[in-house]
Amino acid sequence: MRVLITGAAGMIGCKLTARLAADGMLAGRRITALDLHDIVPAPAPSIDGAAVRTLTGDLAAAGAAEALAAERPDIVFHLAGVVSGEAEANFDLGYRVNLDGTRALFDALRLAAHAPRVVFTSSIAVFGAPFPETIPDDFHPTPLTSYGTQKLIGEALLADYTRRGFFDGIGIRLPTICVRPGKPNKAASSFFSGIIREPLAGQEALLPVPRSVLHTHASPRSAVGFLVHAAGIDGGLVGPRRNLTMPGVAVTVGEQIEALRRVAGEGAQRLIREVPDEAVWAIVKNWPTRFAAERAHALGFRAEQSFDDIIRAHIEDELAGV
Amino acid sequence: MRVLITGAAGMIGCKLTARLAADGMLAGRRITALDLHDIVPAPAPSIDGAAVRTLTGDLAAAGAAEALAAERPDIVFHLAGVVSGEAEANFDLGYRVNLDGTRALFDALRLAAHAPRVVFTSSIAVFGAPFPETIPDDFHPTPLTSYGTQKLIGEALLADYTRRGFFDGIGIRLPTICVRPGKPNKAASSFFSGIIREPLAGQEALLPVPRSVLHTHASPRSAVGFLVHAAGIDGGLVGPRRNLTMPGVAVTVGEQIEALRRVAGEGAQRLIREVPDEAVWAIVKNWPTRFAAERAHALGFRAEQSFDDIIRAHIEDELAGV
Repeated sequence: MRVLITGAAGMIGCKLTARLAADGMLAGRRITALDLHDIVPAPAPSIDGAAVRTLTGDLAAAGAAEALAAERPDIVFHLAGVVSGEAEANFDLGYRVNLDGTRALFDALRLAAHAPRVVFTSSIAVFGAPFPETIPDDFHPTPLTSYGTQKLIGEALLADYTRRGFFDGIGIRLPTICVRPGKPNKAASSFFSGIIREPLAGQEALLPVPRSVLHTHASPRSAVGFLVHAAGIDGGLVGPRRNLTMPGVAVTVGEQIEALRRVAGEGAQRLIREVPDEAVWAIVKNWPTRFAAERAHALGFRAEQSFDDIIRAHIEDELAGV
Repeated sequence: MRVLITGAAGMIGCKLTARLAADGMLAGRRITALDLHDIVPAPAPSIDGAAVRTLTGDLAAAGAAEALAAERPDIVFHLAGVVSGEAEANFDLGYRVNLDGTRALFDALRLAAHAPRVVFTSSIAVFGAPFPETIPDDFHPTPLTSYGTQKLIGEALLADYTRRGFFDGIGIRLPTICVRPGKPNKAASSFFSGIIREPLAGQEALLPVPRSVLHTHASPRSAVGFLVHAAGIDGGLVGPRRNLTMPGVAVTVGEQIEALRRVAGEGAQRLIREVPDEAVWAIVKNWPTRFAAERAHALGFRAEQSFDDIIRAHIEDELAGV
């Protein structure tokens, strides 16, 4: 079976690639070809019996998506996109990559006419405040960012192209991914990972919001698990509503910190310094808190059970079990 | 004030144009220029003190939308689009006109940078079955047609472009327009108008569905009223959720026929012949029935109070009061 990953050089793309390389299989079939596409070269593992190719380019450029679709991949993971902050700061880039790129890929797959499974990473950014205490699966999407708007449009296209039989799409609305490996970034959500990642590495972390902030998290490992599960799911069970809010662990920042203390001790917790930042707080307080995710649960999608599990996954996957 | 109407040659476009010509005013200001755009020439009335231009072309063609935006219209009515049945039958045409054309217009207005009021005709086709008994304003849009998908994408773009201050958009989700003047067409909804229009003209009409079918209607006159009201509404009162489900009259087909009897007598009613059509019924039974439309009501949008009123509006507007 041939697999295509767009956005393969990103954090989730790399972890998905590593998982596929380790499994050698996907959706019950052996992987014989893996195409890794991104604007920069993605790390390419070797897989026994599989041809792994690294491809670079801009999906929205003429002919780029057609070249990928011409290989008739059986399963497509469409992860490519610019992130929320970038899509907000650069209007043209966001629409070009997140809308034009997605539409170009979907249209190329439509014209290739082999109806692959397409797994599309959407986001809880399709939702906009005000929110109920728990956001149900059928909450109306009213995004308050250009990124969320672009993801919503991708979802709508995915559903229509699936309904018409052009491909068999599953949209995965990811919650905040935590603990993100690597360095802090300028995203308003950066601290959710920072307050765990930095103390575990013996470094100080700043907490810009009150400990009462409630938010839903899933580990990078769970995010990859969602994608792999979506690749093999029976589309008939999903029905016409193809976009699914993923489960996660809903905890307050205070509960995150308590979990850190349980898993890594008092010393780690003391490295968190509260430095209120009104600008970050103004953004974060409009974010969704908790999701019902009943459809995803019923379809077998699973996240961690506790924030302790999320921290342990980070330690196992990033800190080599140290 | 300069006004632009796209889709000006369509049924609603013509009636809106006639209303503007009769009023001479819009949103409390005198109309000094009216641009009527469509793929075919729209009928152009004369308006005292106003320059009325008829323009033809394809909005999605290079430069077309830019030429319209360069005139810096104060109020834009974006009605242009291919209808539901056509968008379903011709995938490429539907996406080109309803998505690419809309986006081209919105982007041209963005780049013209004068932030006009934009009134966009969306549709209840953004909603897909299954439905609750009454569809609330915050029901999630999960369209089951390409037309509904394209309208949903237009709504999402409208909201994002408004949020960013590129223009001040109001999306108007029209219910079924009844009584449509003219001839029966191949739309599955055609009979809703046909069972009133044909008997009033002394002709037989076929009824393909059970009399128990419940559906929401607004007259062409009300649809024009919604558009005119939207042109003058205070955007600050609308808030970030820019797309509004319009009110209408929810009646069963049986109640439509009773209203016809009350308004036009027994003879008219006897011209309706029940000829069940499984294909039409299969489509119609998945359509939304009744809408809460609370936000639209609160913002001052008004439809008829009864189906009798809808029939009388048709008689007054189309049959010269006969």
